[in-house]
Amino acid sequence: MTNDNTQWVLTLSCIDGPGIVHAISGAIVAAGGNIAESQQFASADTGRFFMRLQVEIANVPSGSASVGQNSDSVTGTATTPENFEARFRESLAPVTERYDMNWRLDRVGRPVRTLILASTATHCVNDLLYRRRAGQLPIEVPLVLSNHETVRDIAEFYGVPFEYKPVTGAEEKAAFEARVLEAVEQHDIELVVLARYMQILSPELCEALEGKAINIHHSFLPGFKGANPYKQAHERGVKLIGATAHFVTTDLDEGPIIEQDTTRVDHAYTPRELVQLGQDIEARVLRHAVNWFAENRVLADGDRTIIFR
Amino acid sequence: MTNDNTQWVLTLSCIDGPGIVHAISGAIVAAGGNIAESQQFASADTGRFFMRLQVEIANVPSGSASVGQNSDSVTGTATTPENFEARFRESLAPVTERYDMNWRLDRVGRPVRTLILASTATHCVNDLLYRRRAGQLPIEVPLVLSNHETVRDIAEFYGVPFEYKPVTGAEEKAAFEARVLEAVEQHDIELVVLARYMQILSPELCEALEGKAINIHHSFLPGFKGANPYKQAHERGVKLIGATAHFVTTDLDEGPIIEQDTTRVDHAYTPRELVQLGQDIEARVLRHAVNWFAENRVLADGDRTIIFR
Amino acid sequence: MTNDNTQWVLTLSCIDGPGIVHAISGAIVAAGGNIAESQQFASADTGRFFMRLQVEIANVPSGSASVGQNSDSVTGTATTPENFEARFRESLAPVTERYDMNWRLDRVGRPVRTLILASTATHCVNDLLYRRRAGQLPIEVPLVLSNHETVRDIAEFYGVPFEYKPVTGAEEKAAFEARVLEAVEQHDIELVVLARYMQILSPELCEALEGKAINIHHSFLPGFKGANPYKQAHERGVKLIGATAHFVTTDLDEGPIIEQDTTRVDHAYTPRELVQLGQDIEARVLRHAVNWFAENRVLADGDRTIIFR
Amino acid sequence: MTNDNTQWVLTLSCIDGPGIVHAISGAIVAAGGNIAESQQFASADTGRFFMRLQVEIANVPSGSASVGQNSDSVTGTATTPENFEARFRESLAPVTERYDMNWRLDRVGRPVRTLILASTATHCVNDLLYRRRAGQLPIEVPLVLSNHETVRDIAEFYGVPFEYKPVTGAEEKAAFEARVLEAVEQHDIELVVLARYMQILSPELCEALEGKAINIHHSFLPGFKGANPYKQAHERGVKLIGATAHFVTTDLDEGPIIEQDTTRVDHAYTPRELVQLGQDIEARVLRHAVNWFAENRVLADGDRTIIFR
Repeated sequence: MTNDNTQWVLTLSCIDGPGIVHAISGAIVAAGGNIAESQQFASADTGRFFMRLQVEIANVPSGSASVGQNSDSVTGTATTPENFEARFRESLAPVTERYDMNWRLDRVGRPVRTLILASTATHCVNDLLYRRRAGQLPIEVPLVLSNHETVRDIAEFYGVPFEYKPVTGAEEKAAFEARVLEAVEQHDIELVVLARYMQILSPELCEALEGKAINIHHSFLPGFKGANPYKQAHERGVKLIGATAHFVTTDLDEGPIIEQDTTRVDHAYTPRELVQLGQDIEARVLRHAVNWFAENRVLADGDRTIIFR
Repeated sequence: MTNDNTQWVLTLSCIDGPGIVHAISGAIVAAGGNIAESQQFASADTGRFFMRLQVEIANVPSGSASVGQNSDSVTGTATTPENFEARFRESLAPVTERYDMNWRLDRVGRPVRTLILASTATHCVNDLLYRRRAGQLPIEVPLVLSNHETVRDIAEFYGVPFEYKPVTGAEEKAAFEARVLEAVEQHDIELVVLARYMQILSPELCEALEGKAINIHHSFLPGFKGANPYKQAHERGVKLIGATAHFVTTDLDEGPIIEQDTTRVDHAYTPRELVQLGQDIEARVLRHAVNWFAENRVLADGDRTIIFR
Repeated sequence: MTNDNTQWVLTLSCIDGPGIVHAISGAIVAAGGNIAESQQFASADTGRFFMRLQVEIANVPSGSASVGQNSDSVTGTATTPENFEARFRESLAPVTERYDMNWRLDRVGRPVRTLILASTATHCVNDLLYRRRAGQLPIEVPLVLSNHETVRDIAEFYGVPFEYKPVTGAEEKAAFEARVLEAVEQHDIELVVLARYMQILSPELCEALEGKAINIHHSFLPGFKGANPYKQAHERGVKLIGATAHFVTTDLDEGPIIEQDTTRVDHAYTPRELVQLGQDIEARVLRHAVNWFAENRVLADGDRTIIFR
Repeated sequence: MTNDNTQWVLTLSCIDGPGIVHAISGAIVAAGGNIAESQQFASADTGRFFMRLQVEIANVPSGSASVGQNSDSVTGTATTPENFEARFRESLAPVTERYDMNWRLDRVGRPVRTLILASTATHCVNDLLYRRRAGQLPIEVPLVLSNHETVRDIAEFYGVPFEYKPVTGAEEKAAFEARVLEAVEQHDIELVVLARYMQILSPELCEALEGKAINIHHSFLPGFKGANPYKQAHERGVKLIGATAHFVTTDLDEGPIIEQDTTRVDHAYTPRELVQLGQDIEARVLRHAVNWFAENRVLADGDRTIIFR
């Protein structure tokens, strides 16, 4: 019996109730699988149950007595990644139906097709592409689309197609957004990352991308409205600056939060130094959010996210 | 059908293999329970599987069709915390036996009987007792035993029995350790906390307390051997100081690590200021370790600990 | 020549310009002092210059040639802490006048007379009083005044006078505030700490206490208005919670910020757990703010604070 | 009178004593300068006094009465960056001589000539070169020298000369080190960064580069000796991993510490994940150390460093 290192990730949610874990684990056993990782959460807010499992082909010692749950020993067929996945989907079907589950089965490590939108800031784009190349971020990037030329050389260095499409008026903005939707379809995009893309998306685009577009913005205690928030933060003498990565919704900068972080500053920081430090946090927070999304670790629970780290 | 807020915590470990989660969740369903929380981990190092579950009595809507797994609807008996636990132990028995599990079933929130050993430092004792009283630490403390009088008034303020037993020579040390063992038996102690108790325990006592004694000590990068480590840290110009909470073993300061933390310092800190800052970290790190132990979140995996936070 | 360990702390601010440091250091040399610590900051926002110095009596080796700047060698009088301070004030006078300085000279380590206001929460009061007793906070507390009885036993344990004065209507509120002002005068109070005192101060009291009252409150990214912010934070799925210590002004919760900190949370935290974790941060942040104030490390620069840590 | 934004940074150390600040500030006033930033520290360990000042040309309002300390008003010559620096050096000379100071005067923001040594790891080299290009790191890099080809394309992308020189035996190692010394002389190198250069330097090279070579290595609590420390850290179940940047000395990995940081991990991290997370910390810690060195913020005090951040 072979056992390569392929794993599958199953994420699911449904109305909470008894017997769910038993039913799911039963489907895994029936398919000849083994649970490599598992996390779950029952939301008291929405009454829903969430689960993320990593599943591998069970390693049955040769010559061992069958535990009666491995279909291989019944059919005599060797388990391969291909027939395992089919078998698993088959054994899952009655369970997901019975509990009316939202669910998704994916291979662990499969690169997620990601469209990056950029403007003039380089820090987020550079961080994402560097880590993708270093094998630290399971994404593939068929396109970086930008309303400025600034990040072209970074994209090209990392071997990623770059497209420049200026946005200076309403017409160009509509054309840019149309190009986004076209690219999403063309490349079968699963994730759109607003890597400091500095245009406000139209409500229509926000809706079209709901649940698959991630934005990053600065965050402060207290929050600041209006232009030049780092200057406001400086004037207010904040001792912390931070960043928030969140899903894009029509409610500007208020979508479900995926990740946040802060760092200490003091009175001696100029607005310019705050911006620079803020960029470090933005790049790090966005990278974590993208990574967790790509690893199927981010599940939506109403306006909140469940993060199975 | 009643459903109070009582929960049980089940922790277990066994040799990893397929079907474990299915078998455990089956026992829970059979007893009429529901999984409120669940965490698991398969250790690649030791080949063992670890699990922590919080289980509550399943809330079956009145008049709903039975899902066929709730013994209440079969027997017609109302489920109470008392009969649920008995029923659960019954349904668990064949599973724990079949997989040769180490396991433990406890009620969530039950205060753990804790013996505190102290010397002259007050910060850890004060922190533990303050939080116990504030309802933030599920421990009860039948005794604070110390080789100095220093923490007597703190213990008394918090209404905890205090016993002073000086240790100035080998004989007194043996008597102190005998008193520890006696107190452990007398009060059915589950956890011994060395809250800056500054005597080295004998190998015999270490062995007698294995797996249920937690120690706290300072930690530095790099480590320092010998006396007055904060002075050494100052002389070496470290930029971080830290603390480590670990299980007591016969290997001095090298037992399985439960929690660690660090904080930033700079060249301007005097050795005395390092000590003071170090005490804050020690109190915090020890408190977390005690809390996780008391909530059955700490499982041993060889020389490592699994912490299900 | 004697040199005990007494140090003085001089804080000052004035319109920025050349020669200030030279003039101040000249006054120190003239008085026979030595600079033990010094920090300065020129605010680009307000054009003001800020400085904090710790000064000690200069240790002139016996028999050494005078450097011509130590008045001891001129007068032949032994320097004592008493005559040094008088001499220092004398040499400072023309400098502070010439530059129209706001300034203050204090002895390092002198306990600051502090009035604590409390309600039902114990965490901040307990933390402050524990650290005062442990010698980690240079304050003395002539009174804890509270609109609830809750912290009475803590105050009494730490040997601090406690006074209960209920506030259930407008009249009682006015009486409470009158008592605050009376206590400030009676005990020559230098610092008023709102240690989770849950009543809104009247604008009159805010003004009367301007620059010497510190408040602590929770902080979130984004901020939340209205009641039960931890519940809102939970519902919004924040990944960080924090606290801010600030000077009390008539602008509710918006006075100059002294200290802020955050800690990580995740989706699994209940509102109750957020509150508990929030209390840890509140106690820590408030303690730092009080400590820095008591050590003359907090200077106001318009709506910002300069913190000379 | 003109005043551009040029600033100078003066760092100095000498035996501590009264009058130093007064003398230095006098030299600044005499040259027509103004103190923009100042930090100082008196080391109780070595009895030495350390100072870092940023100085700018004083802005005397036109038509204002001279305060009698600005040599411009005396000579009538307009102050320019060129003549200011000469004048400043002149007024400093008697002071630095009188107090037998180690001192250094530099222009703020001048890029420091930096030689980077690399092997196969890309994370540190990429981080340094990205930030240099983004204007966040005041270094220029005339050469990246490596015993592997791995980082060639990164260097070339950032327009930095790259040289490959294999080291597989003692002879090649000597040749590599000779090339280092040659490059140091050829490019007038001020800083050598070992950006995960994985060869042990000979004692001779360590001595030749003393005080101007910075190394980065992982750090753990407790420390681990020998090969594969991340594997050891995993086996020991550490809850924190970290990194230390330090000056290179002949005492392997034990030179004066410049910067350290840690990050949290848990039992679920594989050794491979620990390595990846460790690389993030290494890149960040090394970048900070290089930045502070390039900004003249790092001063040696025996085996310790003073960091004027």
